[in-house]
Amino acid sequence: MSPKKSKHHDKPIISDIGEKKLIKRLLARSRALQPNSPFFDEFYFKSLSDDAALLNMDDKYLVVTSDLLLESSHFPTEMSAFNKGMKAVTVNVSDLAAMGAEPVGFVLSLGLPHDLPLEEFDEIICGVLEACQTYKMGLMGGDTNQAGELILSGTCLGVVDKKKVFMKEGANPGDVVAVTGPLGVAAAGFEFLLSPTSVKENLKERIKPSTIETIQKYALEPHARLNEGLILGRKGVVTSATDITDGLASELDELMQSSPHKVGITLFETMIPLIPEVEEIASVLNKNPLDFALNYGEDFELLLTIGEDAFDKLKDDLGLIQVGIVTDSGKMEIVDKEGKTNTLEKVGYEHFKQ
Amino acid sequence: MSPKKSKHHDKPIISDIGEKKLIKRLLARSRALQPNSPFFDEFYFKSLSDDAALLNMDDKYLVVTSDLLLESSHFPTEMSAFNKGMKAVTVNVSDLAAMGAEPVGFVLSLGLPHDLPLEEFDEIICGVLEACQTYKMGLMGGDTNQAGELILSGTCLGVVDKKKVFMKEGANPGDVVAVTGPLGVAAAGFEFLLSPTSVKENLKERIKPSTIETIQKYALEPHARLNEGLILGRKGVVTSATDITDGLASELDELMQSSPHKVGITLFETMIPLIPEVEEIASVLNKNPLDFALNYGEDFELLLTIGEDAFDKLKDDLGLIQVGIVTDSGKMEIVDKEGKTNTLEKVGYEHFKQ
Repeated sequence: MSPKKSKHHDKPIISDIGEKKLIKRLLARSRALQPNSPFFDEFYFKSLSDDAALLNMDDKYLVVTSDLLLESSHFPTEMSAFNKGMKAVTVNVSDLAAMGAEPVGFVLSLGLPHDLPLEEFDEIICGVLEACQTYKMGLMGGDTNQAGELILSGTCLGVVDKKKVFMKEGANPGDVVAVTGPLGVAAAGFEFLLSPTSVKENLKERIKPSTIETIQKYALEPHARLNEGLILGRKGVVTSATDITDGLASELDELMQSSPHKVGITLFETMIPLIPEVEEIASVLNKNPLDFALNYGEDFELLLTIGEDAFDKLKDDLGLIQVGIVTDSGKMEIVDKEGKTNTLEKVGYEHFKQ
Repeated sequence: MSPKKSKHHDKPIISDIGEKKLIKRLLARSRALQPNSPFFDEFYFKSLSDDAALLNMDDKYLVVTSDLLLESSHFPTEMSAFNKGMKAVTVNVSDLAAMGAEPVGFVLSLGLPHDLPLEEFDEIICGVLEACQTYKMGLMGGDTNQAGELILSGTCLGVVDKKKVFMKEGANPGDVVAVTGPLGVAAAGFEFLLSPTSVKENLKERIKPSTIETIQKYALEPHARLNEGLILGRKGVVTSATDITDGLASELDELMQSSPHKVGITLFETMIPLIPEVEEIASVLNKNPLDFALNYGEDFELLLTIGEDAFDKLKDDLGLIQVGIVTDSGKMEIVDKEGKTNTLEKVGYEHFKQ
């Protein structure tokens, strides 16, 4: 690992290599130091490349997820304090859902600007507690600190039967690639919310109010697919899974990279679930709606691979939508509307990379 | 809870009420929403007022601690990236030690400035991993994000026998009040490190180099009293405990406030363990060395209450130092060198309060 030097610095800086390589560096170092404890087992290091850690608890795993949310990079100005609190919980529960784990408790570490209105503090906490109730767990504790910006650092604990846990690795050629809901809606919401005020005013005249309402709701009030994850977990039919936080293409790449044997994935453009609201925003903004689904994050839908028979049995009850199939090609491909097969590039959002 | 309005704002801001009241607000709200889960029991909410949360695991508790460290408020400029990583682990392990719990794993969420040198990132991770090895646990996972300043948000998991756990509540009149080591050394170190460069240069000429070395080590390389906590835990003789992060007076107040029945504490000035280096710094800086011990934090020594017989048996092996006794007065008092009893005010460090 000798990253090229930055144009602007003598020494390499983290933006020179990006988040995923940083995490690989971190894991490479920690792998060298396997702890000798009854709480760790063969799954332990596999879990490190997932967005959660697994600890032995008899016939169950204790699952630990952690996510740090910052005002400057995770909260659009339109997001209410209540929804910021909700999101700090949701992003963690989504990681549990992606493993079929059931939440048991949440720990919140807060960084707070000294001049934060007390009212906003209360709303953040209400949002956290509301989300904890929604996902049937308790707020276990936390820590508050003075900070330059609002920081919500959440850790969520969950449990899952060892036989039932699903992870990023495990996809088999022939499996159906499925998602739990429409893609790119939050992306459309962020595209709208993050456009300059002047542009936004103009857009409001050209976009249906109901569309604006829908896409904003997906962007500002994300929901974790916990029930789907728990039901799929109980069935024990999922071969691999993750949640879609960085865009479909990037998450598919993660599933492929995690696989111990060579697998590929072929998507079918006609199967990608795009709702009319996403099509409308894309056309108004002159963008490709498919791009919202493939290359943006924040959908928090589950992405999973599952045997064909199991998929057919469960798709209606769980609203599963097939988007492609697992192959043995080792490549990510997408079949377009004309039936032409193209290579699928992953260009999901990554911290430290612009 | 209707805090007075700030002089500078129409609406109350969090600095108007301070950290401890903020946490009380948070807990008051979460108490109203007791989760219905086999993982929670009667100890659960008691643990919320400790610096850790407890979850049921058969005959053990899973202990979860969380601490958020920020460049701007927790790391003096002299602190190396390696020591920043170490500290992120140490502050959490110290919370486990204060309950007699054994560490099982650590989760790290990082907020990183985009221009952080890769070398510093590596050193931070090395510090984290070194500390994880020192305390015999693994780095279980984490999360990285782009941030305006360096943020190290750590969550530590530990286990402790239900019969052996000690908490802030439980002190009994007649118990010995003891600490595990000298107090105020880190405080002396920070007083030196945080003084303006010009002043510092002048100080260096008036303070023994060996003294500067000692106090800086305590300030920059804090160590958690894990072994002492584990041994005391196995003996099951501690009636209440906490770690000294906010100064002895403030922590004693915590033990008193946590007690379901009325207890008081009387300290003896002549018993407070002040090392010569602290005396030297205090005299050079024209401060009262006792103030370093009573009203500064960052010592990370354990503060505990314990029956007199048990104390006499263990004090030599564990280096326990008596500083006072538990009374039934409901007051915090200190007996000075002349034998005069004075009220002891708690003025420990508190976020959002200057």
